[in-house]
Amino acid sequence: MKFQPKTKNYKTKVEESFERQQFMKLINAKLIAVQPGYCEIHVPYDSNLTQQHGFFHAGVISTIADNTAGYAGFSLMEENSSVLTVEFKINLMSPGDGELLIGKSHVIKNGRTLTICKSDVYIVKNNKEKLCASAQLTLIELKNSPDKI
Amino acid sequence: MKFQPKTKNYKTKVEESFERQQFMKLINAKLIAVQPGYCEIHVPYDSNLTQQHGFFHAGVISTIADNTAGYAGFSLMEENSSVLTVEFKINLMSPGDGELLIGKSHVIKNGRTLTICKSDVYIVKNNKEKLCASAQLTLIELKNSPDKI
Amino acid sequence: MKFQPKTKNYKTKVEESFERQQFMKLINAKLIAVQPGYCEIHVPYDSNLTQQHGFFHAGVISTIADNTAGYAGFSLMEENSSVLTVEFKINLMSPGDGELLIGKSHVIKNGRTLTICKSDVYIVKNNKEKLCASAQLTLIELKNSPDKI
Amino acid sequence: MKFQPKTKNYKTKVEESFERQQFMKLINAKLIAVQPGYCEIHVPYDSNLTQQHGFFHAGVISTIADNTAGYAGFSLMEENSSVLTVEFKINLMSPGDGELLIGKSHVIKNGRTLTICKSDVYIVKNNKEKLCASAQLTLIELKNSPDKI
Repeated sequence: MKFQPKTKNYKTKVEESFERQQFMKLINAKLIAVQPGYCEIHVPYDSNLTQQHGFFHAGVISTIADNTAGYAGFSLMEENSSVLTVEFKINLMSPGDGELLIGKSHVIKNGRTLTICKSDVYIVKNNKEKLCASAQLTLIELKNSPDKI
Repeated sequence: MKFQPKTKNYKTKVEESFERQQFMKLINAKLIAVQPGYCEIHVPYDSNLTQQHGFFHAGVISTIADNTAGYAGFSLMEENSSVLTVEFKINLMSPGDGELLIGKSHVIKNGRTLTICKSDVYIVKNNKEKLCASAQLTLIELKNSPDKI
Repeated sequence: MKFQPKTKNYKTKVEESFERQQFMKLINAKLIAVQPGYCEIHVPYDSNLTQQHGFFHAGVISTIADNTAGYAGFSLMEENSSVLTVEFKINLMSPGDGELLIGKSHVIKNGRTLTICKSDVYIVKNNKEKLCASAQLTLIELKNSPDKI
Repeated sequence: MKFQPKTKNYKTKVEESFERQQFMKLINAKLIAVQPGYCEIHVPYDSNLTQQHGFFHAGVISTIADNTAGYAGFSLMEENSSVLTVEFKINLMSPGDGELLIGKSHVIKNGRTLTICKSDVYIVKNNKEKLCASAQLTLIELKNSPDKI
C-alpha cells in the first residue's frame, strides 16, 4: 500500500521521537528505515537481552514489533499528533536464536482515529533470516497532543 | 481457580529460570510471588525504561505481562518441561506513568499441551494502583525439554 | 467495576439495537441481561449452529463473545452514539459441546473514544457450566452517529 | 510460502469436513478454493446475516476468518488428524457493506503441533473489493483423532 504523509518532515519527526525513547538506547535498538507507513528497527544480539536459554527475550521481540508499528503509523500522522498503541497481538513462531533481530512494520489501514499495522520480526543467524514473530496492532492518533512535551 | 503443581519444587524451578533471564536483570525486574498457577513481578521506575514521554515503555509493560504468564504457567508444568509463549494479546489502557509496575498473572486453563493465562499490569503512582494493561496469553509445554540447558 | 450510564434508557437502547440484528434471530440468540457495562446473551443448541463434530461452531461462540461486548459497551455510550468493534482476540478453551451457550461481557475500561471489554462464553451440559472461551475486545464509540439509521 | 501436503486427498478431506459443518449451510457459505496451506470461502449477502445497520454482522466476518484458517491448516495435516482453533485475533477495518464476503487464509507457519495462519476478509460492493478484516490465528493438530467421527 502507498501512503501520502501529512507532514514533510515525517522522517525527522520519527527519528526525534525514537531518540527520546530511553528504552531504545538500553536495548541498543537502531532505527534503520522510515518511509510513509513503514518502519524498520534492528537490535543486535547482546547477552543482556536474553531469556533463560540465551536467546532474545520475547519481551525484546515484542518491543520491536510494537515500536516499528508505532513509528510506521506515526509517520502518517499530523504535525501536532502523538501516537499510542491501543493493543497488539503477537505470535512468537521461532526462538530468537541469532545475532540480529530485524523488525519491519507496515500500516495496513490509516483511519481518521485508528491505524492498523502488521509487524514481522526476523531473526538472523549465520546470515540467514527467519521469521521469528508476526504481530497485528491498533494505534490511536492523539490530535493536538505533540509527541515532544 | 486452584491448581495442584506437578512438582514439589515448582517455586525454586521458577526462581532459577527467572534468575537465568538476563533481560530481567537489565530492566531490574523482581520476582515477587510464585504460587501454583500464579506469578507476580515488579519493575521499579527507571529513566532507562521509558518511551518518548518519560513513562514506562509499552515494551516493558508487555515484557512483564508475558513473563508473569510464562512463570504462572511454568509453575504447573512437569519437572522436565520447559515453557514457550505461543502468542499473546495485550490492551494498553493507561500510560505507564508512575514509580512502579506490578504484573500479576493467573492461569485460567491448564491443558495437556497448552496453558492459557490472563495478566494484568498495574502502574503505581503516589501509592495508588491503576490498571495499566490487560493481556491474554497462550503457552506451550515442551515436555522432556528441561528449562536449564 | 461500577459504571454510571450516560442515558436513562440504556437498556431499551440495547434491546432495540439487538432487535435490529437479523443475525441474532438466525442463530436464535436471546438477550438475557443488560446492566451498565454488562451484557448477557444465550444461544440454545441447534444442529444448524454446529461444526463438523456436532458442537457449537467457533463462529457462533465468537459471535456471542463479540456481541455481548458490543452491548456491554453500548450501554455506557451517549444517546446519539453508535458502537463498532475495532478488534477482538478470543481463546477457544473447550469444545462447545452442550445444550446452551452463555455469553457474559464486562466493560473493563470506558474511555472517551475506546472501550475495552472482557467476554466469557460458557457451555452448559447436563446443567453444568464450563468455560468455553475468553475474549478481550476493543470498541469505538462513534458520536453523533445514531445506532438506528 | 509453498507447502507440501501430507495426504493426497487433502482437498477432499477439507470438502467433506466443510460439508459436515451445518453452520456453513445456515449462513450459505461456499467453499471456493483449497490448496495446500490455503483456503477461500465466499458468503453472499443475505439480510439474515446482518447487524443493526444492515451490513454483514461481525460474527459472520469472524466466522469466515476462522473457518478459512481452519481449513488452510487442515489441508496440511495428517490423514488421521483433526484441527481445532486455539485462538484468533481479528481487526474489523471496514463495515461489511456489500453483496459478497470473500475470506482467504494462508498458513504462515506449519509446526509439528501448532499452525499459524493469516486470514483476510474482503467485502465486495459494485464489483469493487475492499479489505474488511484481517486476522491472525493459531490452530492445533490433534493427531489420531479423525475429523469424521
